Amino acid sequence: MQKRLRDYGMTIGSLETGPRNKITDVKGVTVGHSTIDDGDIKTGVTAIHPHGGNLFTDKVVGATYVLNGFGKAAGTLQVDELGTIETPILLTNTLSIGEVTNSLITYMLERNEEIGTTTGTVNPLVAECNDMFLNDIRSQAVKKHHVYEALSGASGEFDEGAVGAGTGMKCFGLKGGIGSSSRILSYPHGAYTLGVLVLSNFGQLEHFRMPGIGLAGEKIKAKLDDHMDEGDKGSVIIVVATDLPVESRQLKRIIKRAGVALGRTGSYMGNGSGDIFLGFSTANPVSHHSNGTLQKRETIHEDDIDQAFTAVADAAEEAILNSMLTAKTTTGREGNTLVSLAEFMDELAGNKV
Amino acid sequence: MQKRLRDYGMTIGSLETGPRNKITDVKGVTVGHSTIDDGDIKTGVTAIHPHGGNLFTDKVVGATYVLNGFGKAAGTLQVDELGTIETPILLTNTLSIGEVTNSLITYMLERNEEIGTTTGTVNPLVAECNDMFLNDIRSQAVKKHHVYEALSGASGEFDEGAVGAGTGMKCFGLKGGIGSSSRILSYPHGAYTLGVLVLSNFGQLEHFRMPGIGLAGEKIKAKLDDHMDEGDKGSVIIVVATDLPVESRQLKRIIKRAGVALGRTGSYMGNGSGDIFLGFSTANPVSHHSNGTLQKRETIHEDDIDQAFTAVADAAEEAILNSMLTAKTTTGREGNTLVSLAEFMDELAGNKV
Amino acid sequence: MQKRLRDYGMTIGSLETGPRNKITDVKGVTVGHSTIDDGDIKTGVTAIHPHGGNLFTDKVVGATYVLNGFGKAAGTLQVDELGTIETPILLTNTLSIGEVTNSLITYMLERNEEIGTTTGTVNPLVAECNDMFLNDIRSQAVKKHHVYEALSGASGEFDEGAVGAGTGMKCFGLKGGIGSSSRILSYPHGAYTLGVLVLSNFGQLEHFRMPGIGLAGEKIKAKLDDHMDEGDKGSVIIVVATDLPVESRQLKRIIKRAGVALGRTGSYMGNGSGDIFLGFSTANPVSHHSNGTLQKRETIHEDDIDQAFTAVADAAEEAILNSMLTAKTTTGREGNTLVSLAEFMDELAGNKV
Amino acid sequence: MQKRLRDYGMTIGSLETGPRNKITDVKGVTVGHSTIDDGDIKTGVTAIHPHGGNLFTDKVVGATYVLNGFGKAAGTLQVDELGTIETPILLTNTLSIGEVTNSLITYMLERNEEIGTTTGTVNPLVAECNDMFLNDIRSQAVKKHHVYEALSGASGEFDEGAVGAGTGMKCFGLKGGIGSSSRILSYPHGAYTLGVLVLSNFGQLEHFRMPGIGLAGEKIKAKLDDHMDEGDKGSVIIVVATDLPVESRQLKRIIKRAGVALGRTGSYMGNGSGDIFLGFSTANPVSHHSNGTLQKRETIHEDDIDQAFTAVADAAEEAILNSMLTAKTTTGREGNTLVSLAEFMDELAGNKV
Repeated sequence: MQKRLRDYGMTIGSLETGPRNKITDVKGVTVGHSTIDDGDIKTGVTAIHPHGGNLFTDKVVGATYVLNGFGKAAGTLQVDELGTIETPILLTNTLSIGEVTNSLITYMLERNEEIGTTTGTVNPLVAECNDMFLNDIRSQAVKKHHVYEALSGASGEFDEGAVGAGTGMKCFGLKGGIGSSSRILSYPHGAYTLGVLVLSNFGQLEHFRMPGIGLAGEKIKAKLDDHMDEGDKGSVIIVVATDLPVESRQLKRIIKRAGVALGRTGSYMGNGSGDIFLGFSTANPVSHHSNGTLQKRETIHEDDIDQAFTAVADAAEEAILNSMLTAKTTTGREGNTLVSLAEFMDELAGNKV
Repeated sequence: MQKRLRDYGMTIGSLETGPRNKITDVKGVTVGHSTIDDGDIKTGVTAIHPHGGNLFTDKVVGATYVLNGFGKAAGTLQVDELGTIETPILLTNTLSIGEVTNSLITYMLERNEEIGTTTGTVNPLVAECNDMFLNDIRSQAVKKHHVYEALSGASGEFDEGAVGAGTGMKCFGLKGGIGSSSRILSYPHGAYTLGVLVLSNFGQLEHFRMPGIGLAGEKIKAKLDDHMDEGDKGSVIIVVATDLPVESRQLKRIIKRAGVALGRTGSYMGNGSGDIFLGFSTANPVSHHSNGTLQKRETIHEDDIDQAFTAVADAAEEAILNSMLTAKTTTGREGNTLVSLAEFMDELAGNKV
Repeated sequence: MQKRLRDYGMTIGSLETGPRNKITDVKGVTVGHSTIDDGDIKTGVTAIHPHGGNLFTDKVVGATYVLNGFGKAAGTLQVDELGTIETPILLTNTLSIGEVTNSLITYMLERNEEIGTTTGTVNPLVAECNDMFLNDIRSQAVKKHHVYEALSGASGEFDEGAVGAGTGMKCFGLKGGIGSSSRILSYPHGAYTLGVLVLSNFGQLEHFRMPGIGLAGEKIKAKLDDHMDEGDKGSVIIVVATDLPVESRQLKRIIKRAGVALGRTGSYMGNGSGDIFLGFSTANPVSHHSNGTLQKRETIHEDDIDQAFTAVADAAEEAILNSMLTAKTTTGREGNTLVSLAEFMDELAGNKV
Repeated sequence: MQKRLRDYGMTIGSLETGPRNKITDVKGVTVGHSTIDDGDIKTGVTAIHPHGGNLFTDKVVGATYVLNGFGKAAGTLQVDELGTIETPILLTNTLSIGEVTNSLITYMLERNEEIGTTTGTVNPLVAECNDMFLNDIRSQAVKKHHVYEALSGASGEFDEGAVGAGTGMKCFGLKGGIGSSSRILSYPHGAYTLGVLVLSNFGQLEHFRMPGIGLAGEKIKAKLDDHMDEGDKGSVIIVVATDLPVESRQLKRIIKRAGVALGRTGSYMGNGSGDIFLGFSTANPVSHHSNGTLQKRETIHEDDIDQAFTAVADAAEEAILNSMLTAKTTTGREGNTLVSLAEFMDELAGNKV
């Protein structure tokens, strides 16, 4: 059982979480990991399935927001143009983006004979962070079978921390990785869920802030006498899932607010940090083939959107903190070690105001 | 009766036009002009009402596309963010953009007591071209009563050419101004109309092309021995109206294809030419106030969009040519004269292949 | 003497401030206000001159970043396209954007006879926030003489708080307005200054955070029993000035980090808040007229940019807090009152951890 | 010897071409192909080296412009953010984008030991078109050795037409592929070269236009009685190279004008056509590592840019036509055949006005 933020008695914001407090609280969403942990190789793949059906024939409404484009994500152009996502979303290390993209294409071809024969092609959506501090990233260790493992092993329950794409990541100078959280949205027209999954690999220790604690990073830094500060490099990928009925324009506005979480936790969005947000709504699925009629959609009124803004800011902040709390201390490439935030929580929690 | 492209036996594309072959073929759309023609002052205002009701309370889906941002249009940021237009669209000369914006705000305030009291503000949408060749633009001649004249005089019938905002404009070294055209879109789910209105003020004579004629500009230039060539400056504003049910993302894709018409007529989108496209769809109006429910929308499948792309490219090309054919030869500031394309049509039409 | 953040013994970040700790620490930058305070009318104009010369003939490198486009700023399209700013920057209330734009055009015409005669036009840059809570915004009270007063009265010393465009603004449910701060950047190749001026009109009281205090808003709210919470509406305009040699692309990256300050102070970038950032660099001025040669420029290496990112995040946060601390409690339209943050500082400072 | 547009006595525009009339007229630029022509497999890779040195340590100024994002190009985000290109540019088929990206990463790792050890990662730039009409694209036939063949075989001389990435492409219903052209730019401050390489795979036959001929497509269609029209699908990638000193903002403006060529040749930028433009300037190379000083750059004044706009529009049009004229009639997957434009030129040239 991984100990998360709320297990320390801390909460963020006033909206309720879903039952798992994870992205998989959004109905149909599943997450899988492939973890590669072998000496100097500390990396992997994380897969997010927006739903359990055929994504190519039944696409989800999608959006991307690039806060800092110093990153190598693949597939964002078409999401921006068409407002749909038609593959699972894969996360990995920077230098494996090609292999993972290629494997995802193959995966989609195997499931859709029509691609490249009677219909067009497919747009693989893959994002990355640079895990070179702990991982021998030059080895391009991720292979097709890792991609398939992450895709096929996905479920509603999944681990956080130093797993999957998060195996080798670093966040605020501590161990980063995969984290998640969710919020429930309540409107007169119904209740919806918004979930966030982050791949955290950004920030500088001395700037790290925790809710109710303030500059936790300064306190931690004082205890890490050999801490090597490298600036706010790395990157963060934030994936937002919801069943709130929105059009892609609204979804882009919503996922943009994930940036609030970066500010709150202490990032200044450093030059070297490719901060990229991806989002999808499972409401109003989009059929690949037209049936010759108009598409009936439902969307929220723009006045309803503030609750989703709050939810994504709060859930992204909590997901970042969950990624750090669940990621265990890890030693990787050349003996480099990243300590887990969890190791400082007894003391920090005592300081909580 | 103004003689237009089709009166010369020329057509563009294979889609049918609406009954007027104007933007006002889109149901509810009306256009009005205020023309200021007084010695060195050759300018004015053109108003496009997307529908006859209260635009603030019942907004239309909107989009903008900036091909060349060397322009001063007001109001585009909010259209991009919210995907709606909530005022009539006004066109004028560059240095009158402030006065026209201010007058449009006043006009909206008079019709909506709630603005600035119980609800927020209003986003005036105004675009401009530089008519300084014929117009004493420094005089900032456009005043509030001109704006109101254009707004109140709008109807389904309207003149093209050297009227309203087009009074002093120049296109491909000849007289430019207001032009319009429309196309009928036919789908299994119904027939729709797409209309275009241009304020043409761009292009260089020697590059001017006409369908079936080719480089008409070279032939005309040979006859204008004192023609002063100034490069592809100016600007063009293209307003696209439709009742096709589209979301703002789709609408942005559609209006972007107005750029095809610039390429076809001979523009290379010169540095000094602020080329800006604005569009709205009267389908799926957006209520200012939420009624607490989800909004029901209908949109075309993306596979249906090519017909709209063709329509906007063809109608924009025809609207540009109509603006030039209907604009009469005009002498303005410092005796500067722009000759009408109509004066060359007998000879050009004879050369048609 | 206005009491600012540092007068309470609080600081933000580790970079040093300039001598005034204001945007006018950037050499050549001056700021002026016109304040309209007359019963229900609480509004005004604030002018920022990037340098003391002729901005039209000697432009500054410029950039804009639209975090939330629910705003009506004028002039951003051309700044984005050409990367230059050629007028002073004016701030005002939302419904005065037209009049202020028009007045700024007139102002520029008076100083540049060539505009509209021998050269092209001019791009006025004006931004706004909605001050309707305290101000009878429907009166469109700002007139040309107010614009000229702000422009002509500009100097290196200027007031903060409820002055100029800030007269009627609201921030985190308290009184907002004009605030400023600056930072010194130190590189091997020299020292530079980066200054920020904000027009603060955003945020919800319960989310308001102060450095070292945490959720100050909750504490304040407990004391304001009749506080009417209206959500995160309003807007914020953040103007960044620097003499750091950067190209417009780099400048856009820098000003984008002003968004960090919004996250830190507690905004979630609400739907109704048009959050717009404008920036200029006085290094590498751009001549209006070409002299037929290549332009020699110096720019920082991208590796140098993180210090500017930190500076803008810190200075924007401090400028927001300064705007609130210096803005006095104000009663305006319909007896609406906004209380100054300063009234709570004794108690809050005592709570500082 | 491949017969090109000028070999038919046709020219476009008034600017002179470089000696080869190819992108490799820009000093240092080389192009290589790997062609896979094996039964149903008709595909390949084309590589463009911006210069002969180490691109990672000495980057070129870069820009991208997405006219229609219905495409899968990799690497554009970072080019947009940082304004530099740090790898050769590779073109291939849509479903090989992952493998080619992966191979390009490996190629760069082999040449730069510091990547992933002492410095960050690398941003591979790869674009694609869908060649499924002639090619068994599902086979993902392109492998690492093809990528290396294209990269290592690059030179100033290179073939056009059905080679490399162009092997299976279709343009205006005829055979498409690789085409190139160049223009000389003359300024008081010197002469520069601008070159274009296109991977043409767009357009609908009936809309195809040639300069001086008009609607050539209609005439050709009349002769192809079994022509299967499929709409304006496919995509076009246009790569622009120059030694003109420009910043990335200016370069983006320049490459955007490649869209003019699409309009002129008859495209309406169909829904299914991912139209993506990439550009680089070899002037002002950008060092990966900072030496602690300011970077000295030279850039053209914006008034100089129109000549580059004209050049890119003209060269892109000519490159598209060259791609079609040099691409031989090809039969591929399932016996699908695309006829070469060259087969119709005798008759079309006779019709030239």
